[in-house]
Amino acid sequence: MKEIRIGLLGFGTVGAGVVEGLQRNGELIASRTGMDISVGRIADLDLESDRGVTVDPAIMTTDAAAVIEDPNVDVVVELVGGTTIAKDFILKALALKKPVVTANKALLAEHGAEIFAAAAKNGTDVYFEAAVAGGIPIIRSLRKGLVANRIERIHAILNGTCNYILTRMTKEGLPFDQILKEAQEAGYAEADPGLDIDGHDAAHKATLLASLAYGSHIPMDAIPVQGIRGLASEDIEHAAELGYTVKLLAVIGREEDEIEIHVNPTLIPSDHMLASVGDVYNAIFVKGDIVGETLYNGKGAGRLPTASAVIGDLVDASQDLAFGSSGKSFPFPWRTEPLQIRDPGKIEAGFYLRLSLMDAPGSLGQISGILGKNGISIASVLQKDAMVGQCVPVIIVTHRARQAQCQAALDEIDALDIVETKTVCLQIEDFE
Amino acid sequence: MKEIRIGLLGFGTVGAGVVEGLQRNGELIASRTGMDISVGRIADLDLESDRGVTVDPAIMTTDAAAVIEDPNVDVVVELVGGTTIAKDFILKALALKKPVVTANKALLAEHGAEIFAAAAKNGTDVYFEAAVAGGIPIIRSLRKGLVANRIERIHAILNGTCNYILTRMTKEGLPFDQILKEAQEAGYAEADPGLDIDGHDAAHKATLLASLAYGSHIPMDAIPVQGIRGLASEDIEHAAELGYTVKLLAVIGREEDEIEIHVNPTLIPSDHMLASVGDVYNAIFVKGDIVGETLYNGKGAGRLPTASAVIGDLVDASQDLAFGSSGKSFPFPWRTEPLQIRDPGKIEAGFYLRLSLMDAPGSLGQISGILGKNGISIASVLQKDAMVGQCVPVIIVTHRARQAQCQAALDEIDALDIVETKTVCLQIEDFE
Repeated sequence: MKEIRIGLLGFGTVGAGVVEGLQRNGELIASRTGMDISVGRIADLDLESDRGVTVDPAIMTTDAAAVIEDPNVDVVVELVGGTTIAKDFILKALALKKPVVTANKALLAEHGAEIFAAAAKNGTDVYFEAAVAGGIPIIRSLRKGLVANRIERIHAILNGTCNYILTRMTKEGLPFDQILKEAQEAGYAEADPGLDIDGHDAAHKATLLASLAYGSHIPMDAIPVQGIRGLASEDIEHAAELGYTVKLLAVIGREEDEIEIHVNPTLIPSDHMLASVGDVYNAIFVKGDIVGETLYNGKGAGRLPTASAVIGDLVDASQDLAFGSSGKSFPFPWRTEPLQIRDPGKIEAGFYLRLSLMDAPGSLGQISGILGKNGISIASVLQKDAMVGQCVPVIIVTHRARQAQCQAALDEIDALDIVETKTVCLQIEDFE
Repeated sequence: MKEIRIGLLGFGTVGAGVVEGLQRNGELIASRTGMDISVGRIADLDLESDRGVTVDPAIMTTDAAAVIEDPNVDVVVELVGGTTIAKDFILKALALKKPVVTANKALLAEHGAEIFAAAAKNGTDVYFEAAVAGGIPIIRSLRKGLVANRIERIHAILNGTCNYILTRMTKEGLPFDQILKEAQEAGYAEADPGLDIDGHDAAHKATLLASLAYGSHIPMDAIPVQGIRGLASEDIEHAAELGYTVKLLAVIGREEDEIEIHVNPTLIPSDHMLASVGDVYNAIFVKGDIVGETLYNGKGAGRLPTASAVIGDLVDASQDLAFGSSGKSFPFPWRTEPLQIRDPGKIEAGFYLRLSLMDAPGSLGQISGILGKNGISIASVLQKDAMVGQCVPVIIVTHRARQAQCQAALDEIDALDIVETKTVCLQIEDFE
């Protein structure tokens, strides 16, 4: 039995979950793996609050550096969050050749290059299963289970808050603002919800998945991101009539030696498995050239699901220490030349367009003319509540086209007198 | 870069897939993992057939022992299948302290105790990701990703042939025999389909999952197994009317310190994710005490999906050799005392009963009386095409009850004069 003591930085929701998980199942984990993992020290600014778990007050301190430097601490668990002091803590631990386990997607997405370089330089590792999709072992699956595969495509639902809001909008037909407010009151959404509902959190996770799949760091600012803020209930309803469900979808793929990556509210066929992923669940749909299509589903956040991922990483880190394999298993990045990110205008998708169109003879002909001129062909049209001389919503579903073609057409369309307000445009993913 | 040479025993469908996968993506795998894996020797009785891949004829032999003993072979891949010579080959390799990668579920289910003991004695490992659910990395997920969890329950679709047949019966309303025949012609079912359609293959895989989840070997003969042979289309139709989809479901769980494990055609709610797993796909729905519910889905068999799992294991075996961690990562079994298998009669489920009942006054009252006397309460009744004085199908859905109670009631019911033929009884799983 190998004894491993962890230093926990940040004793918040997930930190308390990790302590609870180790207390509850530590003996079982030791039987399974030969690793006896215990909490050696905990650093947090708040030494008083009740976290629902009992720890010896003597192991608690406000001094994170003292925990990192403690010679009895073998592995550092960073659960402070944010991109400032968390980064300093991680770099300090790596400089001491201590492996780091973190759930900090924002930090790795923005400063991953520096952090992974520091780990490699010091012959140790950063483990981050908990940074993407909570308790779902997707990082391991990409690194190990699917290691034989070229990753052709990943479609993923990566933000639980957005998925909760979209699920309720779809099932109950309620407006975005009302559900956001209720989600905030219930603790499913942050008081400042921008990171979630504007798509940045999903983009942080998507960039980590893309980096693993393709072996080079993907810079965050290269990713086109559109969130769900202000999404209209009526578009969700129209989508349903057309056989689609709206999800905040991260799409990652490789096209002609370029990486395609973007996050958008997207219409997906309602009979696709991803459409049935509801509430705060996440799911990752991975297509590999050998394995074909696989899907991974589970809770994407929360005290215990995230702790499950952190503890899984602690076992890996402990075994790597025990076997002398730290810093050796999965060189990252493993590609020496960075990959090109595909220009957003070249992204191909079907499009859902909702026009506010004057119901006059020839209106629709004018629209389809502009679409055709831009190389976009129409798959179907749905006209609602037509009354001559008034503006009515007209839904147009297009075949696959490039984003730039669609934008050019919309610029022309929205300049027409017969179009009253800016056309709503959502991407459609048919998985073909 | 560490060079690893494998010895391949069995150059059939999956063996050729492994060679193809390594040829196609070997360089990529080496970049990702630092392991340069190549095929050193291949043993097969057939040295002539075209497998769709090119190999140097000089590495091929009919002599499996020569491959196992070859000092240049670092890892042995057993893809011979069956439970006789495959076992001898594996034991020979382990005796030489060579790690073994295998897809042989039947062998591990029946002789796992002996094989894993031989691996432990020789300080090496048997890797078997490919033995359960093809390319889905479920073995790794249970061993590593979910290592923090007590596994409360696993519900799994583990046989692609059965799932293909059930999917077509459900969608097309065709009879079992016709679809089986077509599946055999299309290569989705074996000429001798018993291992698949009678549920034994799913039971082999279930016993492996249960062994991993609970840490002790589960003997195959302790598992109640019912296949889908002769399942009637009308039961699938009645189930659909009641909001259920019929799947061949393996259920694994722990109840009051006993292991519950069984394989049955089972009605599951049609809006559950497992219900949407179609065709030859497999899925494993795992509930852990920390992570909550997670689901893993992908192709459960086939040349390349299975090869994806084999190659993933080859990377693990190679890294364990490189890092000196062979035989150390996951002691198995890790529980010293064997666990009790729950008596099948104590298994609880809802039940779907289709009675062939004489449509006479009081008939249904008599039935419900017998059910009630045996402690079974009725959730709903569906009576089809009633004509007085004739036998009509009556569908009864019960609340949860013990298998033994249901069997006792059925013994009484089927002895009644008003019941024409043996009552059809299927389990219902409501995931509650």
